Amino acid sequence: MTIPKPNYHPPFNVTRASHSVLHVTDLAKSRAFYVDLIGFIVSDEDKDTIYLRGVAEACHHSLVLKRADVARSERVGMRCFTEEDLEKAKFHFDKAGLPAQWVERPYQGRTLHVNDPAGAPLEFCATMAVKPRMILSFKDHRGAVPQRLAHFPLLVPDVQRPLEFYRTMGVRLAAYIAVDGTEDPLFVFLQRKGNPHDIVFAPGAGPRLHHAAFAIPESYTFFYICDLAATMGFAENVEFGPGRHGPGYALFVYMRDPDGHRIELFNTHYQCMDIEDEPLRWNASEAAQRRWQLPARERWYTQASRFVGVEPKEPARKGSPMTLEKYVGAV
Amino acid sequence: MTIPKPNYHPPFNVTRASHSVLHVTDLAKSRAFYVDLIGFIVSDEDKDTIYLRGVAEACHHSLVLKRADVARSERVGMRCFTEEDLEKAKFHFDKAGLPAQWVERPYQGRTLHVNDPAGAPLEFCATMAVKPRMILSFKDHRGAVPQRLAHFPLLVPDVQRPLEFYRTMGVRLAAYIAVDGTEDPLFVFLQRKGNPHDIVFAPGAGPRLHHAAFAIPESYTFFYICDLAATMGFAENVEFGPGRHGPGYALFVYMRDPDGHRIELFNTHYQCMDIEDEPLRWNASEAAQRRWQLPARERWYTQASRFVGVEPKEPARKGSPMTLEKYVGAV
Amino acid sequence: MTIPKPNYHPPFNVTRASHSVLHVTDLAKSRAFYVDLIGFIVSDEDKDTIYLRGVAEACHHSLVLKRADVARSERVGMRCFTEEDLEKAKFHFDKAGLPAQWVERPYQGRTLHVNDPAGAPLEFCATMAVKPRMILSFKDHRGAVPQRLAHFPLLVPDVQRPLEFYRTMGVRLAAYIAVDGTEDPLFVFLQRKGNPHDIVFAPGAGPRLHHAAFAIPESYTFFYICDLAATMGFAENVEFGPGRHGPGYALFVYMRDPDGHRIELFNTHYQCMDIEDEPLRWNASEAAQRRWQLPARERWYTQASRFVGVEPKEPARKGSPMTLEKYVGAV
Amino acid sequence: MTIPKPNYHPPFNVTRASHSVLHVTDLAKSRAFYVDLIGFIVSDEDKDTIYLRGVAEACHHSLVLKRADVARSERVGMRCFTEEDLEKAKFHFDKAGLPAQWVERPYQGRTLHVNDPAGAPLEFCATMAVKPRMILSFKDHRGAVPQRLAHFPLLVPDVQRPLEFYRTMGVRLAAYIAVDGTEDPLFVFLQRKGNPHDIVFAPGAGPRLHHAAFAIPESYTFFYICDLAATMGFAENVEFGPGRHGPGYALFVYMRDPDGHRIELFNTHYQCMDIEDEPLRWNASEAAQRRWQLPARERWYTQASRFVGVEPKEPARKGSPMTLEKYVGAV
Repeated sequence: MTIPKPNYHPPFNVTRASHSVLHVTDLAKSRAFYVDLIGFIVSDEDKDTIYLRGVAEACHHSLVLKRADVARSERVGMRCFTEEDLEKAKFHFDKAGLPAQWVERPYQGRTLHVNDPAGAPLEFCATMAVKPRMILSFKDHRGAVPQRLAHFPLLVPDVQRPLEFYRTMGVRLAAYIAVDGTEDPLFVFLQRKGNPHDIVFAPGAGPRLHHAAFAIPESYTFFYICDLAATMGFAENVEFGPGRHGPGYALFVYMRDPDGHRIELFNTHYQCMDIEDEPLRWNASEAAQRRWQLPARERWYTQASRFVGVEPKEPARKGSPMTLEKYVGAV
Repeated sequence: MTIPKPNYHPPFNVTRASHSVLHVTDLAKSRAFYVDLIGFIVSDEDKDTIYLRGVAEACHHSLVLKRADVARSERVGMRCFTEEDLEKAKFHFDKAGLPAQWVERPYQGRTLHVNDPAGAPLEFCATMAVKPRMILSFKDHRGAVPQRLAHFPLLVPDVQRPLEFYRTMGVRLAAYIAVDGTEDPLFVFLQRKGNPHDIVFAPGAGPRLHHAAFAIPESYTFFYICDLAATMGFAENVEFGPGRHGPGYALFVYMRDPDGHRIELFNTHYQCMDIEDEPLRWNASEAAQRRWQLPARERWYTQASRFVGVEPKEPARKGSPMTLEKYVGAV
Repeated sequence: MTIPKPNYHPPFNVTRASHSVLHVTDLAKSRAFYVDLIGFIVSDEDKDTIYLRGVAEACHHSLVLKRADVARSERVGMRCFTEEDLEKAKFHFDKAGLPAQWVERPYQGRTLHVNDPAGAPLEFCATMAVKPRMILSFKDHRGAVPQRLAHFPLLVPDVQRPLEFYRTMGVRLAAYIAVDGTEDPLFVFLQRKGNPHDIVFAPGAGPRLHHAAFAIPESYTFFYICDLAATMGFAENVEFGPGRHGPGYALFVYMRDPDGHRIELFNTHYQCMDIEDEPLRWNASEAAQRRWQLPARERWYTQASRFVGVEPKEPARKGSPMTLEKYVGAV
Repeated sequence: MTIPKPNYHPPFNVTRASHSVLHVTDLAKSRAFYVDLIGFIVSDEDKDTIYLRGVAEACHHSLVLKRADVARSERVGMRCFTEEDLEKAKFHFDKAGLPAQWVERPYQGRTLHVNDPAGAPLEFCATMAVKPRMILSFKDHRGAVPQRLAHFPLLVPDVQRPLEFYRTMGVRLAAYIAVDGTEDPLFVFLQRKGNPHDIVFAPGAGPRLHHAAFAIPESYTFFYICDLAATMGFAENVEFGPGRHGPGYALFVYMRDPDGHRIELFNTHYQCMDIEDEPLRWNASEAAQRRWQLPARERWYTQASRFVGVEPKEPARKGSPMTLEKYVGAV
């Protein structure tokens, strides 16, 4: 892998991963999962859409659920700092041959749609309606008490491909996993907001949304959300974990929503903003080494949410990660 | 299963599960595991033996490690209340055709050896040397900060068999797992000290010691001990969990020591001492239902520590629990 | 203080602290405090009475709130093991010149009323109606998720006085605080159920109920219940703590209910049941030493719930504990 | 207070609060406090200086302890993004009449010294030597497991005064406390790195360093560090808390080092980087309202670390916060 040289003077200021827009087939079931179980705060809702935010978010939404016939990821939302940055972004994308459209989206300022080079549909906005932070409203805390959206991992057939696009925007490589002894990249962790991930690319048929990751408070919360899930009939929705990440370092648990969309709940990331803070390389063997949890099941590697109207492309080479199936069979 | 009628007037007063005596093949390795990793307090040690206690124990030891050529469980230790109870116990066992011998054991008062009807070697004592409780010695806390020994599960070919022996001693049935729609017992959880388990029987080739269970403080501790295990080279020793029990209700994690002896770390049990508190029945399907953790690997069901000089007997019928291997293969 | 010699052959078998019966002046306000905030499970209620239990209790109630004109403690409830033990208890009390009456109480088996030598009204029963343990019903957990009643501290003018009464019943001294260099007792911690306290005596005008203590799960819970209290308008009800006990070792927080009745929430006690486990002596200076929390306010030492119809007597000597008022004034 | 209009196009890019340089009178005692108790990682040390970092920091140091005759704060360290930003900073400060000097500091790139308008000595650097992040090195975790430096509150006689200086650098107002019904500022919370505080100003004789704040992991850690402090002879160093902040929302505990320098340990801040995220106003009465902990002692408001060679100036008006002394006296 060619490590992308950071761009310290990007053409516009993108600030962070912002929100996920998902198509779900049964709003009531999704609400039971995201609100009653996980504990998202409802900012607004009508019969077709639910706007959700974490308890530490003042922005109107970090997760939007839309009723649809087919479960899909609609868009990955990113923030620009100012409206002026949005204008510059449009100019930049158009020039780069990635046609960008202005659209209107409820509760968001002017919004810009563009597909990244891997075909993932993005939307950029600079402002949203503002809501109260609910951190101290303890009586409204439920479930995992999600704090805020952190990052989006995407599966793409070639992880090298999107790097230049994000590098140009000033998004920096925080860490990457490479095949031992090579510079062959497997996972790349990119960050803009000063903690290690805003967007992550992993190899697989894509572009598809692997998951949206939300920060949760502490050890207790990991067990409580799993226990609560089991109590409320969502035991099978706990897909992987709790466990401990190598890259990123956080505790994690992955859950699947009623449509199979995946979220990660994890505890807080480290800060990562200094110029001398070089991208951290992990060898695949190191990153995949068993910490203490068992490996993920095969489907964790292969299943992901397709984007609306985007046909996934198979990667040239199939990976062969250590799955739970292999591990249990082998040992 | 015939639910044993409690004996409210036992012939002698046995009070609790007391200590585990294990043969280990490399004391230094065992010490690294039990002391440096798990965090037991060393009460005394010499070149052949290490005496360990939890931070909340004033008794001299709840775990004894003896250097030996072969890894075995030597004895399961139980407490009688007074020396007089020990005398009565000897009389009772002799009369019951279970010959009991007086022995001397370091740091213990007069000690009585007897095998239970399943052949498990027990030792009863009424007193031990006293050591300071270390609960507030926070600078001496390490690892999982084990609090105290709680209970011993044993594999036996016929779980029905030992019940009468323990019932006679006033040990009460707290809960049991039975095959759905039958009274066919699978696991029986017996208690004497007022929390749900002192000794537990599960079906399998035996008698063998499945594990010794020690209470640990809280959610944080479960993740910390797993993380620490991975840091210190003991990742593979984390065998099962963290997860949540049905019967017993506790959070748990099972670990294997360097010889393969198994310990359970769990958080505190409920209290269970009232006369109207009927044995709780769990159907096998209920107890085995996935809470949120994956099922245990097959070896968790089949591997256990043999007792010194006791040849395990196979059960008449083999069980067929839901193992991780089956689960992963099937779903 | 004369350390009471334990009675290993008590005339009847009392097993544990059982329940607290409180008179409250506004049931709705008390319900908001105990159920909505603290998280007790309602076993039964009508317009005059609320029966509460902790999530780990199968007994019908450990806390009974009765509507009354004046806030008082009605009775301290204790358990005998069997109905036969109750009969023996009546015989024993009558013989000792402490007249005991049979009464009927809802959801309790036959119940025996007697006043202890300090005049504290007790009630003994052997059985209660049984309710499901709610430990795994995570969606019904609220607030501090109280597990179970643990112990009752009472203020009495002479702590020496009740000792013989409880000693005779087989209640054992677990620990005591004495004036440095003397055997002059200040606090005495008595236990019957094998963890360090069932009933505690401290010097003060009495008999009065200082508090009822309930076990709660873990570190997280201490902060959550305080935060929730502040959110729900109960900030001023947090009276003392969170802090760390010397004797008993537990983390604690004391709260006052809307009538001023006090509860302690603490995490689990150590086990204490072996015969060689001598009463632990704490010098007053040691026990009162600042761990890290500030000292309690004066009112924590002096305010307590009067018993119905029992006029408190002043102690011969006034104590002079280190109060927050003194501490802040002096340092 | 005039709310400073954010400067979205600052003359140079300052990125975050970076490090604290303290003069201490006994390095061994300070090491016992910061390393053995609190758990900082030693990056380097010699007989005169100890360089410390948190377990989540890759930068060489966030806390520097220098042996000196008098306990003082030497400098407050800030980061610029690039060396070019440092050059621009020098140009900017010189032009603003705040003479800036280049200096060399061990383990730091080129370093710029300047005093802010209140007279607080700052030092800016763009790079430091890099050290491994120790997040997963669980066996090296001790005490509070400090993660990273977060922010510096300073006492100044006029909190309005430094605002323009920091505003110009693009540091944004996240929140402020004002006297009820006025725009009279009391505390101002400024942030640059996207969580709510990098530098904070509060009224008092100054400039003096009130404390340096470090993030710690979770509920458990707050109790553990206090318990450990008491065990290790540092009970009196626990000055205020644990408690819950209004502004900033975090759990906190304040400790004093052996020289009286103050640190805050708190859990993680919320994210705060969107343009529409208006400064949050707290009325003094709201911010000072009792959450559940008692108010701080008077000395928490008045004692702070003087800067080397800088004579504090008294504020024109003395504040009159609710202190523990007043609270205890009044209620």
